[in-house]
Amino acid sequence: MNPTDEPRRPVARLVPGFRDTYSDEVQARRGMFETIRQVYERYGFVPLETPAIEFVDVLGKFLPESNTPAAGIFSWKEDTGKDEEGKDREEWVSLRYDLTAPLSRVVAMGHHFPLPYRRYQVGPVYRREASLEPGRFQEFYQMDFDSIGVPGVAADAEACCIMSETLEALGINRGQYIVRANNRKVLGALIEKIGIGAKGQETAWSEKALTVLRAIDKLDRIGLDGVVDLLGIGRKDPSGSFTPGAGLYETQVEQVRSFLEVSSTSRLDYCRSLEKMLSGSKSGEEGVREMVEIDEFLRKAGVDEDRVTFDTTVVRGLAYYTGPIFEATLTMEITDSDGVRRRFGSVFGGGRYDYLVERFTGQRIPATGASVGVDRLLSALKLLGRVTVGSSTAPVIVIALNSKNLSEYHTLAASLRSAGINTEVYMGGDGLAGQMRYADDTGKVVAVLRGDREKAAGTVSIKDLRRGKELSAEHSNRKSWLEALPGQVTVPEAKLVETVKDILARYDPARTSQP
Amino acid sequence: MNPTDEPRRPVARLVPGFRDTYSDEVQARRGMFETIRQVYERYGFVPLETPAIEFVDVLGKFLPESNTPAAGIFSWKEDTGKDEEGKDREEWVSLRYDLTAPLSRVVAMGHHFPLPYRRYQVGPVYRREASLEPGRFQEFYQMDFDSIGVPGVAADAEACCIMSETLEALGINRGQYIVRANNRKVLGALIEKIGIGAKGQETAWSEKALTVLRAIDKLDRIGLDGVVDLLGIGRKDPSGSFTPGAGLYETQVEQVRSFLEVSSTSRLDYCRSLEKMLSGSKSGEEGVREMVEIDEFLRKAGVDEDRVTFDTTVVRGLAYYTGPIFEATLTMEITDSDGVRRRFGSVFGGGRYDYLVERFTGQRIPATGASVGVDRLLSALKLLGRVTVGSSTAPVIVIALNSKNLSEYHTLAASLRSAGINTEVYMGGDGLAGQMRYADDTGKVVAVLRGDREKAAGTVSIKDLRRGKELSAEHSNRKSWLEALPGQVTVPEAKLVETVKDILARYDPARTSQP
Repeated sequence: MNPTDEPRRPVARLVPGFRDTYSDEVQARRGMFETIRQVYERYGFVPLETPAIEFVDVLGKFLPESNTPAAGIFSWKEDTGKDEEGKDREEWVSLRYDLTAPLSRVVAMGHHFPLPYRRYQVGPVYRREASLEPGRFQEFYQMDFDSIGVPGVAADAEACCIMSETLEALGINRGQYIVRANNRKVLGALIEKIGIGAKGQETAWSEKALTVLRAIDKLDRIGLDGVVDLLGIGRKDPSGSFTPGAGLYETQVEQVRSFLEVSSTSRLDYCRSLEKMLSGSKSGEEGVREMVEIDEFLRKAGVDEDRVTFDTTVVRGLAYYTGPIFEATLTMEITDSDGVRRRFGSVFGGGRYDYLVERFTGQRIPATGASVGVDRLLSALKLLGRVTVGSSTAPVIVIALNSKNLSEYHTLAASLRSAGINTEVYMGGDGLAGQMRYADDTGKVVAVLRGDREKAAGTVSIKDLRRGKELSAEHSNRKSWLEALPGQVTVPEAKLVETVKDILARYDPARTSQP
Repeated sequence: MNPTDEPRRPVARLVPGFRDTYSDEVQARRGMFETIRQVYERYGFVPLETPAIEFVDVLGKFLPESNTPAAGIFSWKEDTGKDEEGKDREEWVSLRYDLTAPLSRVVAMGHHFPLPYRRYQVGPVYRREASLEPGRFQEFYQMDFDSIGVPGVAADAEACCIMSETLEALGINRGQYIVRANNRKVLGALIEKIGIGAKGQETAWSEKALTVLRAIDKLDRIGLDGVVDLLGIGRKDPSGSFTPGAGLYETQVEQVRSFLEVSSTSRLDYCRSLEKMLSGSKSGEEGVREMVEIDEFLRKAGVDEDRVTFDTTVVRGLAYYTGPIFEATLTMEITDSDGVRRRFGSVFGGGRYDYLVERFTGQRIPATGASVGVDRLLSALKLLGRVTVGSSTAPVIVIALNSKNLSEYHTLAASLRSAGINTEVYMGGDGLAGQMRYADDTGKVVAVLRGDREKAAGTVSIKDLRRGKELSAEHSNRKSWLEALPGQVTVPEAKLVETVKDILARYDPARTSQP
């Protein structure tokens, strides 16, 4: 093409904050989703998919006092037909930022299913961020399960069981994680007790109460002393920057401190201590009663303290929760590829939210559920070695030595595929050396070669690429090991499938039985 | 809440042209994707995921001579950091409208993989439509496989095999579908032959040539006579509206007609007839040579004419194809739920496109691939009875008769789940009748009941809900059959799993072995 015909050649580039996901990662994620899905379905949750695009007001993300969507979501105006006067109507739409707001819309529309509605959903969500930490993106997956129309806390107790069972199904052993539960009503009673919130105020907190809860939410990172600073005048962090505190009196700070120090050695201790501490508060008594019920459920289900514990320090941000809240934390340290010890923290969390549908209909529908932190959990599983996939879906490549014999190579491949072995025929333009490099780069395990000599003899050469690499470690350069063809055997054509299977079984017995 | 606090309660509604997808449909689609994925991986294709959001110029959808994106895509402006002068930069971004344009971007960026790059991708794409036919949406799935960096037509022949194998893997039998292949070079030679296109023009057609190709593309719908009308003065359709034609002379029309009548009884006939008809045209001779090669490949692979045939009438729209093109058509008529006989037409198609990466880099990279028409194929599979799922992922429900015994119901459920039987415990607020209605509405097969009597006796009652429904067909109203409890047995608790398994096996042996 003449460059003057096309003066502005576009630059191939990603939108900042977005990423491509390659074979390994896609396969690992799919495997994880599949395992989680099976656990959710075991409990009778059914799948739902909602559109990526919703009306902004449906997502509840118009800024207060304005007709502008919040900055944290991707929004734009769309023609949506004509209004009553026949004029073109433009409305704000945006990309969903979570899977809970769309679920509320579905329930409020009220079609297609009876309550309780127990659904799971997996899909990408979108957050518009001015700046992102490394490894975080504006598009990422969530995988939620929710029960809508479930008044009793049995559903919350079940959610804790499901979280525990999901992590164990993924290969995270008992002792490597803990599910910690708390209750918003209990937190509300604390706020009420120290006199900075109105009685029975379950959903709307005072500014001071928010500062207190935010401080507690930071306990994992800044420790109890740090929290105490933030409850009082404020805290100077190691970098020297100062965060103003809630300005509580010393007696108030002490009350919060004893609340946070409630023994979490047993669920029963949690319930007994809080019962005393919060007596007289309606919200507190209700919250404790719910936790007693959850404990009873868990005990009868044989779910011990090493799987689900109660913990006064769990806050779960400041979102829409109204009762029990819970989160699963990975407790073990994992050494990452740079030798750095990492703790993963919360990978799965949720709670009860009884008001979400009310926003549309005025009707209160009790609901509870939890959401997987997909990226963080997947990173942990990778470091734990719980997901193992090669970079190729096919372990075998048939080398194309002579373009005249192409369809014969495909026939060899077809016989391997019929035996359940995923096989690629090389179809690029390179010669032998380039093809062997391609096999290496794409993680192939076996190469099948048939040149004129083999063809005349009715044989086929089969190369164990990993063994070949080991054997040729002494060769000084790549070219020489390619020519030496170590790890290679020549067998009659009838032995092709059997020989390839034997080699694959050396490395990954599961691989050979791929359907 | 006080209504004056919230004067504008949002209306729960979908953005027009979008839809929610419920359990049955999600499960059916997932099953279909899983089968297709296995075929793609058998040939060594690896998965890729790209973001939903791309720069508009990367998608190639700026309108010519303007800085406005095309109307058919969802687009908006985003801040993308600062420009060289430190000013805020705004750029047009949009939702991807297919999976091929993002793939071209990935290849042009050239990271992370060697060529050939053989990838598959499944995901939603977005088309902004002013009006939509019923059953069509602005968000829908595509599932593509493509080979990038494959110069020879063996890759195109392989693509035809993969399409055939995919449909058969999905349960569409030989004889119920046909893959039809043609070649853009052959079509180009026809245009050249009748003197309405420049020689060797592979990608850019004259206006007249486009009209001719569009006419041919309509052959399936309007028949050969209709096409002939459109090649000449024009065509009046049954509704009376007139479409102007290409205005070809009669001799030209005759040339096109003989081209379209080329016998497709055999691939060899196609090649021989076109060889004669298009001799002297470089493009035509090249196209025929490619088709001869594809035929040879298919013959050696044992792929007969009942699976892949050649057909001069295949055009595949007017997109970017440059060589072989192919599409799979369902040939059988299916009677839909309204008793209407339906033909599904093309459900899978693609071809060779050698220019897509060139747009970015100036470098020509040969590529070929195909895309599944996900919604259409899924509709066909449903009507063929090739996807069968209940509306529930769990066939068993434990009825909650007494809220005091809730955790016992969960224990019963746990023992069923341990035996691999997906089980839900009812957690809504209804009594027995409401719970049985819920079981019915959500497609449950078995209900497990334990009241005080059963509890005292160490037994459990198990109801076969389908049998119960049959038995109670004579009952005059719903309430009476619920009370009569037909199809119900009472067994010792130790026999719970066995009895439930037996009932499930009556209806769907596969279901009981769910992991």
